[in-house]
Amino acid sequence: MAFTKKALPKKSDNISQWYNQLVLEAGLADYGPAKGTMIFRPYGFGIWENVQKAMDVEIKAKGVENAYFPMFIPESLLRKEKEHVAGFSPELAVVTIGGGEELEEKLIVRPTSETIMYDAYSKWVHSWRDLPVLINQWNNVVRWEKRTYLFLRTTEFLWQEGHTAHATHAEAYEMVLWAINMYENIYKEFFGMAGYVGIKSKAEKFAGALTTLTFESLMPDGKALQSCTSHDLGQNFSVPFEIKFQDKNGKTEHVWQTSWGLSTRSIGGLIMAHGDDNGLILPPRLAPIQAVIVPVDTQGTVVEYANKIADVLKGAGVRVRVDARDYETFGFRINDWELKGVPIRVEAGGREAAAQTATLVRRDNGVKEVVSLAKLAAKVQTTLDDMQHGLYSQNKAFLESNTSEAETYAEFKNIMEARKGFIRAFWCEKEDCEKKIKEETKASTRCLPLDAKEESGNCVYCGSPAKHKWLFAQAY
Amino acid sequence: MAFTKKALPKKSDNISQWYNQLVLEAGLADYGPAKGTMIFRPYGFGIWENVQKAMDVEIKAKGVENAYFPMFIPESLLRKEKEHVAGFSPELAVVTIGGGEELEEKLIVRPTSETIMYDAYSKWVHSWRDLPVLINQWNNVVRWEKRTYLFLRTTEFLWQEGHTAHATHAEAYEMVLWAINMYENIYKEFFGMAGYVGIKSKAEKFAGALTTLTFESLMPDGKALQSCTSHDLGQNFSVPFEIKFQDKNGKTEHVWQTSWGLSTRSIGGLIMAHGDDNGLILPPRLAPIQAVIVPVDTQGTVVEYANKIADVLKGAGVRVRVDARDYETFGFRINDWELKGVPIRVEAGGREAAAQTATLVRRDNGVKEVVSLAKLAAKVQTTLDDMQHGLYSQNKAFLESNTSEAETYAEFKNIMEARKGFIRAFWCEKEDCEKKIKEETKASTRCLPLDAKEESGNCVYCGSPAKHKWLFAQAY
Repeated sequence: MAFTKKALPKKSDNISQWYNQLVLEAGLADYGPAKGTMIFRPYGFGIWENVQKAMDVEIKAKGVENAYFPMFIPESLLRKEKEHVAGFSPELAVVTIGGGEELEEKLIVRPTSETIMYDAYSKWVHSWRDLPVLINQWNNVVRWEKRTYLFLRTTEFLWQEGHTAHATHAEAYEMVLWAINMYENIYKEFFGMAGYVGIKSKAEKFAGALTTLTFESLMPDGKALQSCTSHDLGQNFSVPFEIKFQDKNGKTEHVWQTSWGLSTRSIGGLIMAHGDDNGLILPPRLAPIQAVIVPVDTQGTVVEYANKIADVLKGAGVRVRVDARDYETFGFRINDWELKGVPIRVEAGGREAAAQTATLVRRDNGVKEVVSLAKLAAKVQTTLDDMQHGLYSQNKAFLESNTSEAETYAEFKNIMEARKGFIRAFWCEKEDCEKKIKEETKASTRCLPLDAKEESGNCVYCGSPAKHKWLFAQAY
Repeated sequence: MAFTKKALPKKSDNISQWYNQLVLEAGLADYGPAKGTMIFRPYGFGIWENVQKAMDVEIKAKGVENAYFPMFIPESLLRKEKEHVAGFSPELAVVTIGGGEELEEKLIVRPTSETIMYDAYSKWVHSWRDLPVLINQWNNVVRWEKRTYLFLRTTEFLWQEGHTAHATHAEAYEMVLWAINMYENIYKEFFGMAGYVGIKSKAEKFAGALTTLTFESLMPDGKALQSCTSHDLGQNFSVPFEIKFQDKNGKTEHVWQTSWGLSTRSIGGLIMAHGDDNGLILPPRLAPIQAVIVPVDTQGTVVEYANKIADVLKGAGVRVRVDARDYETFGFRINDWELKGVPIRVEAGGREAAAQTATLVRRDNGVKEVVSLAKLAAKVQTTLDDMQHGLYSQNKAFLESNTSEAETYAEFKNIMEARKGFIRAFWCEKEDCEKKIKEETKASTRCLPLDAKEESGNCVYCGSPAKHKWLFAQAY
């Protein structure tokens, strides 16, 4: 088969075409047959498995245990918390037939599990001794979406959802903060992505929450991505669901609750954040394959040498693949792994086999280096670390250089037209201004950063007094 | 709180009451609000996590990769393979409303994923170079069941389903055998359970398969449990789904397929197989907690000493919990962990703290032994190994001593009335005899063991010539 470089649209020209074609061609995902659904192919799912592995350790270290709740929620349960059901109603998938018969009560396929879990919590919690309840689930949820994008917005997606119940609000809020900090750290250390942590406005918060904390990252097209959330639910669910406990003094109280989740949408963010015109660039800690060995020849001693290199790297704990496909050219194979974003490519031919060396090529900057086999494992490990940190630094610099201040609404509009990104601006916290800004500029409030100081200024839209600068951006 | 031993029904008196109450009281599971659904509580889900960990390694070592396919299957896809849809039709849950609107095409919640996966395979497979396709999923599936039992039969359950496509039937059949052998080994090494591997009769095989291999274990009440299956699908799906490939000679062929699955039902079998009148007995390799440290006093130096013991055991890689609940008596705490089936209990009070010793109690045989702290980790590890192997030996002995031979139908009926268990008997392989035996004795054909030799005899029911002794049993 003659080598032809696949015509991937340039990321710099049209990121949305680049994204779609890359996701399909790199074998990350495919469209499912039902509207808005997607198939996570092994290469894309492998990234999610690495996210799970990293996060599950943190979740368990906090004392939160995994469990599994049914995905079918009787309609009556969902209706118990009014704001919650109103928020999710337009997005529900409903089972009306089971075992060949029309059901007496419709079953909702969970869009999130607050209601079904808290119904159970109300049976399990009686006294302070039963608290805290610290439970997490890794599962699938369904939200019927009109417009879908692979990974970023699909009818069914995968996520973890943590749900805790506590004796005091202070203890619950500590958990809400812990979760968002844990996510920020996972994004930093594994996704190589920076972002802003803050509080959502009333209009943008989770249906049923007192407060929603969010982690907002920035995509190359200047749009923000809400990358995960952590909710202070207060007693909004424990009152209707009657999750009550006797405290140490024998008094009956309602529990204080939290929920927090990170989904497979995060992989969409990852793809956008780090790719380039040649394809994907995967941060080493999430890459299903960290180093691919591409022998120049696809038989004989060169392949043996490639396998030897692979063994050396495997022995050092590197996730390795050897690509000796004899029906593809060397050029095709190289481009294929570039497209797939494998962090390090190791090339070797007959000369390298004789000299016991190999050429190491970094995916992020294309730098090539000839390394002796004896030093290869150490070199690969430091290079993987370098890349991991380099991707984060780059992403953080991008975030910072694309965060602007706007004093006036004219400035605000100019930035949103010209370069987008995050804008820091005073807002009076009235919903009406927020709504109009969104209508006129497509930018919504993303969050009030947790570290924002109280200042005094004037709302960028209406001019009335304002205490805080909020972050605005157009969003996915 | 005064200590009262919970009134668990005796396993020996009424295994089904014992089972239900134990599952609830040990915190393994609870009933979900929708009919036939269950909640996997952390303690029960922890067992499943250990099964996943063990099996995922084996699956990946075979080169099978994890992926995720949508759970909604358009009705038209399910209808493509006629025997398959007929087999599952009575059990389907159907989504008819999405995003507030009646759907144009109904969506089936997957009862298994053959059809949705093979629709994708037909797009991915073009030539022999794309083969084999080796994909596994860990997911949730739904089969509407009239009668449900926690773990053993629930509307929604969790499992893994492996689905492979090959260029030749021989290669596919090797995979079918690999899977059932892998399962048998996982049952032996992790569940501590023995069973029979064999071929299902035509009436009992999977809807759409050429051949179904099964692993059948035996429950203490003498009933068999189909514990997992591995299917040779032949070309039964590749023809209607048009999964075609060009072979090395340029000829177009249909692929040969397999599917194989093990579900959370296996945990139901585990509970039944190993419990006793005092509760659960967990095989150490699947136990979420392998050793519980129960200090006699619940404060002061004794608790410090308990934590010290825990650190020593954690350091040796043992999964440990310290139970110093100050609102429960020592007796209550001991019984609670006995009920929960934790393999080893380590008791210590002031005297033990002073002497740097502890009392080690085995859950399986109740044997107590005083061990010095210096030798505790090694002793715990060998005891866990002993228990793991001991449970298997016991289960294997039970299986063998409850497998009978029946020459005549009178004998067959007597055994099924008196002691049940497996019966080895000649069967002519006519469906009519199989059906009548089931109607008259409640015993169905479980399998033709893979190692069964061809013999010559007469059908235990009709007397006509028969070549093989099949295994019969009443089943869950």
